Amino acid sequence: MNLSTDLLAAPAGLQTFIPPQRCLLGPGPSEIDPRVLTAAGRPTIGYLDPAFVTMMEELKSLLRYAFQTANPVTFAASGPGSVGMEMCFVNLVEPGDKVIVCRNGVFGGRMIENVTRAGGIAVVVEDQWGQPVSPEKLQAALAANPDAAVVAFVHAETSTGVASDAATLCALAAQAGCLSIVDCVTSLAGIPVAVDAWGADAVYSGSQKCLSCVPGLAPITFSARAIERVKARKLPVRSWFMDLNLILGYWGETTRTYHHTAPNNSLFALHESLRLLAEEGLAASWARHRRLHEMLAEGLAPLGIEFLVEPAYRLPQLNALKVPEGADEAAVRRRLLVDFSIEIGAGLGPLAGKIWRIGLMGYSAREESVRRVLAALRELLAR
Amino acid sequence: MNLSTDLLAAPAGLQTFIPPQRCLLGPGPSEIDPRVLTAAGRPTIGYLDPAFVTMMEELKSLLRYAFQTANPVTFAASGPGSVGMEMCFVNLVEPGDKVIVCRNGVFGGRMIENVTRAGGIAVVVEDQWGQPVSPEKLQAALAANPDAAVVAFVHAETSTGVASDAATLCALAAQAGCLSIVDCVTSLAGIPVAVDAWGADAVYSGSQKCLSCVPGLAPITFSARAIERVKARKLPVRSWFMDLNLILGYWGETTRTYHHTAPNNSLFALHESLRLLAEEGLAASWARHRRLHEMLAEGLAPLGIEFLVEPAYRLPQLNALKVPEGADEAAVRRRLLVDFSIEIGAGLGPLAGKIWRIGLMGYSAREESVRRVLAALRELLAR
Repeated sequence: MNLSTDLLAAPAGLQTFIPPQRCLLGPGPSEIDPRVLTAAGRPTIGYLDPAFVTMMEELKSLLRYAFQTANPVTFAASGPGSVGMEMCFVNLVEPGDKVIVCRNGVFGGRMIENVTRAGGIAVVVEDQWGQPVSPEKLQAALAANPDAAVVAFVHAETSTGVASDAATLCALAAQAGCLSIVDCVTSLAGIPVAVDAWGADAVYSGSQKCLSCVPGLAPITFSARAIERVKARKLPVRSWFMDLNLILGYWGETTRTYHHTAPNNSLFALHESLRLLAEEGLAASWARHRRLHEMLAEGLAPLGIEFLVEPAYRLPQLNALKVPEGADEAAVRRRLLVDFSIEIGAGLGPLAGKIWRIGLMGYSAREESVRRVLAALRELLAR
Repeated sequence: MNLSTDLLAAPAGLQTFIPPQRCLLGPGPSEIDPRVLTAAGRPTIGYLDPAFVTMMEELKSLLRYAFQTANPVTFAASGPGSVGMEMCFVNLVEPGDKVIVCRNGVFGGRMIENVTRAGGIAVVVEDQWGQPVSPEKLQAALAANPDAAVVAFVHAETSTGVASDAATLCALAAQAGCLSIVDCVTSLAGIPVAVDAWGADAVYSGSQKCLSCVPGLAPITFSARAIERVKARKLPVRSWFMDLNLILGYWGETTRTYHHTAPNNSLFALHESLRLLAEEGLAASWARHRRLHEMLAEGLAPLGIEFLVEPAYRLPQLNALKVPEGADEAAVRRRLLVDFSIEIGAGLGPLAGKIWRIGLMGYSAREESVRRVLAALRELLAR
């Protein structure tokens, strides 16, 4: 190749991308505290730098607080929440293992995919979209499948806005001798997550929901029982990137062996967002999400907008709302974005076109955001 | 759980993490242009926002320029270079497939792990660490394994500072009817990478080397032949997260179906770093890396520091240097970091303790960096 004459041309005239200023009230990412954005933009350092290693240890202790666990194996996986999910399944499921998956929305369905791709056999406990996972159905499935190795469910279903009773479901799994895998992507910092009190074995979350960090990291924690299971595997983990045995060489307590290049700047940001959470306090963060949800609900009632989910199971941070009679679901969402620069979410799967999803997560859970979306909806629905 | 009394306590007194200002001359991450850092710290937007979608299309065309390819399937995978590697293997290798892996350093070894975990059978072509991959050995391996499906090798071995002849190796693979997987993590933007001219089928890189972006993204491109192979698979891809069939629903040409939350802020940064590369021009970027390497080499000669690699195969952006007689390898590296705030890399595997690795990548490839590390080495080695 003649370097001077034969190169394919560069695209011409591209400008720096300046994202529009959005009010982010969808299912994630949420808005990011300016202090967290500043952290993401600090000059980077090496992933073996002693200063970075000190930061990693702080990050682990902050994550233990957020998850309410003493698990030594608690860190941030280098990928989105989907990597957190896959890391749990690919490490804890061996080919032929039976896994009971409770499905009441999109993410339970994704868990089934993860089980089969890890070589496991999924036994599915079905609940309606908009309903929580039924402990009775799980109990029946455990009784019918005494050889099950793992139980998996979603604590806070982002697709429907439903909270399930994680404490009860984890206890049922443990009583049956199963490990539990719990998706806390949308719940962490928004409603109580108590990994140790639940006795949960593998729990993952995402950075871009109630933690209000840059998207692309998956906080994750494993119990001692889970780590034993990984170490006792008969076959190697099917993923090199997600193999806990290797990752712990870098994130573990005593060694810092290179596995992959850590996403340093995102980790700077996560450290800061968790530090802000610790400063506010978990109980205060949960109360704030609850309070803002109530403020939203009060404002929606006069507009005739009803919730999909019964009050007892409603997630304050993810409000699934029935589109009122006569309103054009997609048009209202588009006008919110174009005219008001407010992002809200659409329904997925069987709920597409039928619901809106208004997230009030982390830094987006502020009074001004609620006032802003209510005012915009009032105007748009009156047209 | 009584929320007010039973919470595990937050770690006390943690401050915002302010990374030290480092001169990053290791094997990556490299320093980041302030314009790219600013991009990483911009307020985030949704991954389905029309403004974001426009940015994605620009990003794809900028990546095609960097890779010198017209491949429609060219995007940034949501993870470090290791995800790029695994995405290639897990999609292109089916259980039982024979894959010829050329190993002349750490990353060839990692490829073998990827083959076996994807269910494939690795046939290894061995070359010494510090030597390029031998086309003759590959040719012999192809002749001995007419049933091989894939050939994989590393263009620029980060562990040794060696460039291999990618054009020749890809041509041999194609002649034998094999797909080629090429690791360009350290080469992209530092030395010529010409995906289409090589006829390479699956090529991945990393954001944190010569692109000088925040770590955590893997630019990747697939030929039409590679995509055909993925679509014709008999068994599903073993990873849900890395399944190209699903990812293309989001990154493809016509649809933007949610697969996972994109790491938006890192993508803002990558857009800017690629834009700066297009502004400088690939040929100018290659020439700059070459020029800075020569400046370093001239300065090292009087210090009695020799290169591990013959000039013909030397990577300008990753200089593997033999530790001179009498010098304490680890102590010099530590003093560089502590006294001069300069990071350089150690040797890996059989080269541990024997070499230093000085990276001159992307934004780190500046004259002041070369002067700074030379001055520091002069002082430390004279002690």
